[in-house]
Amino acid sequence: MNQRVFNFSPGPATLPLPVLQEVQQNLLALPGAGASILEISHRSKTFEQIIAQAEANIRQLLNLPDEYHVLFLQGGASLQFSQVPMTFLRGSGRSADYMVTGSWAKRALAEAQREGGVRVIWDGKENNYSRVPKKGEYDVNPDAVYVHFTSNETIQGIQFPAEPETGDVPLVCDASSDFLSRPIDVKRYGLIYAGAQKNVGPAGVTIVIIRNDLLERVPDGLPTMLDYRVHAENHSLYNTPPVFAIYVVMLVTRWLLESIGGLEQMHAINQQKAQMLYDAIDRSEGFYRGHAQPDSRSLMNVTWRLPTEELEAQFVKEAKEAGLHELKGHRSVGGIRASIYNAMPIEGVRTLVEFMEDFRRRHA
Amino acid sequence: MNQRVFNFSPGPATLPLPVLQEVQQNLLALPGAGASILEISHRSKTFEQIIAQAEANIRQLLNLPDEYHVLFLQGGASLQFSQVPMTFLRGSGRSADYMVTGSWAKRALAEAQREGGVRVIWDGKENNYSRVPKKGEYDVNPDAVYVHFTSNETIQGIQFPAEPETGDVPLVCDASSDFLSRPIDVKRYGLIYAGAQKNVGPAGVTIVIIRNDLLERVPDGLPTMLDYRVHAENHSLYNTPPVFAIYVVMLVTRWLLESIGGLEQMHAINQQKAQMLYDAIDRSEGFYRGHAQPDSRSLMNVTWRLPTEELEAQFVKEAKEAGLHELKGHRSVGGIRASIYNAMPIEGVRTLVEFMEDFRRRHA
Repeated sequence: MNQRVFNFSPGPATLPLPVLQEVQQNLLALPGAGASILEISHRSKTFEQIIAQAEANIRQLLNLPDEYHVLFLQGGASLQFSQVPMTFLRGSGRSADYMVTGSWAKRALAEAQREGGVRVIWDGKENNYSRVPKKGEYDVNPDAVYVHFTSNETIQGIQFPAEPETGDVPLVCDASSDFLSRPIDVKRYGLIYAGAQKNVGPAGVTIVIIRNDLLERVPDGLPTMLDYRVHAENHSLYNTPPVFAIYVVMLVTRWLLESIGGLEQMHAINQQKAQMLYDAIDRSEGFYRGHAQPDSRSLMNVTWRLPTEELEAQFVKEAKEAGLHELKGHRSVGGIRASIYNAMPIEGVRTLVEFMEDFRRRHA
Repeated sequence: MNQRVFNFSPGPATLPLPVLQEVQQNLLALPGAGASILEISHRSKTFEQIIAQAEANIRQLLNLPDEYHVLFLQGGASLQFSQVPMTFLRGSGRSADYMVTGSWAKRALAEAQREGGVRVIWDGKENNYSRVPKKGEYDVNPDAVYVHFTSNETIQGIQFPAEPETGDVPLVCDASSDFLSRPIDVKRYGLIYAGAQKNVGPAGVTIVIIRNDLLERVPDGLPTMLDYRVHAENHSLYNTPPVFAIYVVMLVTRWLLESIGGLEQMHAINQQKAQMLYDAIDRSEGFYRGHAQPDSRSLMNVTWRLPTEELEAQFVKEAKEAGLHELKGHRSVGGIRASIYNAMPIEGVRTLVEFMEDFRRRHA
């Protein structure tokens, strides 16, 4: 009954087994604390060390300069969709540039439009959101407050291979679904936000990385909880933070550093896993049809179709029986989606590839 | 090393041991799900059942009429301090009435003042926030949008013995620190909000109960994540909710129903625990001096002083050595504070009372 399957859920998503085992072992009482991580005060020394360690791990993984702050917030990327333009756009008399690459970028755009002037500088609609823009396909307004992009679209399964070029305009990124999955050129970003529940922890904490010059632009008068300065000044302890989720982020980032060896190594593993799936699609003689164009293929969410919707349903059903769960594509686009974030082991992908080949032999 | 102590933390706070044991047992894989509660999709049938059960438990415990919605949000009471007035006060052309009973009511007031007109209809400043107002000591504006009160002040250790009288004006309550600790006259409330981390779960989820007529008053144009209607329509699944925290709330509320027997029984136990501590204070011949006036004494947070600050420090130190943790009063008021929420066992309070008497014999 309690056997673990390979869980290809797009998020919340599979976590490293050693992390889960450590959470389980210490669930009744953290060593030395006499109480569970679910019970300790956020003002205790025990938790102060945990949150400081979580921040230090993220700083080390990203090689983050001192001018950046690391915040642990709540509300998910969805609240950031509003908090970013509420902070920088509303009342600025200027506009922001948005790249619309898929479902999540559209949500970010819709919230920004409520707060101020927005220019869409690229929209992938005409190619059904199957690729991200190339350099030269968009014009950044040099007076824009920021340029917003979604580094990975979980629903479509497309990903920016590298940051867009924005000159001196600060880059703001929804990195929810590929945060800490590969090295990034962090100095190019003014603000990065990411829900934890794909690569770095359970649902319930949102990591925001914000550069000093953006922090200085935060206007007075915002609700206190939506003022980035308050959280930076209080090291995310203005009010009670999501203690448990931050604890798991600390454990996952420690696993990234100590068991994987850092983001270069994680990226290599993620490339290997994705390549195994894209190869299986490419050699299927059209039985599996990938959604993403090759130069925009996501390393996190691999999406494809089968010849009919009936076969897709059959695929999902048989895969589940084989211990390969959560492979159904998002309801808005259909098809199949395999989410293979950091913690998905190669063994899981190998098993899926074998299943795909067997399924094709039987149904092609 | 891993032995559990008696944890008198004001929140996050001690949880029922059987709940922690169940969380621990199923941490690697929920029965039948093949994955941890930290990993399962919030759109999975498994989680849909969990969140529905959490809501059903709360409805049963409070005997909640159908016209109320139960929402599981993020951001803590601190975000509700803003979201409530942002929703009902801003742009209404009317004002709201606030009762200022202590540190938390002050925070709620400060955020409301940023959003619109506010009248303070009672302020406990002149008696150092040692009691709540009695009927007749405040005048509710019959045109007020709502009356806000803080049912229990954790820092001062005072609590409303019953709801204030507000006529037809909707009652809005920050119930963070006594939610589900006793029966309430729920039909008197328009909106109740509570961070979970005192009586009902770990930090990371905020429960909001809102009546239909208030929901209908929500204006258009708010950020989507701050629109109560969106969360009501989507049954708290508009975006990824704090899955794990909601799971623990489900387990704690099940424990309240099945092991305790409901809120009447919980209230009786909470009265007994608080009485044991207040009796120890009252028979100490002035060695222990309670902060709260007798008719406003909190059943959740018992606060008292010793003859000197040195003795207070000594008390906290010796108590910790005796396995009684987190008894230091809030830094803003000093003294001693014992938080004895639902899950604090009577045995913990008995041990504390024995320690208090022994300490007094040795130091009086």
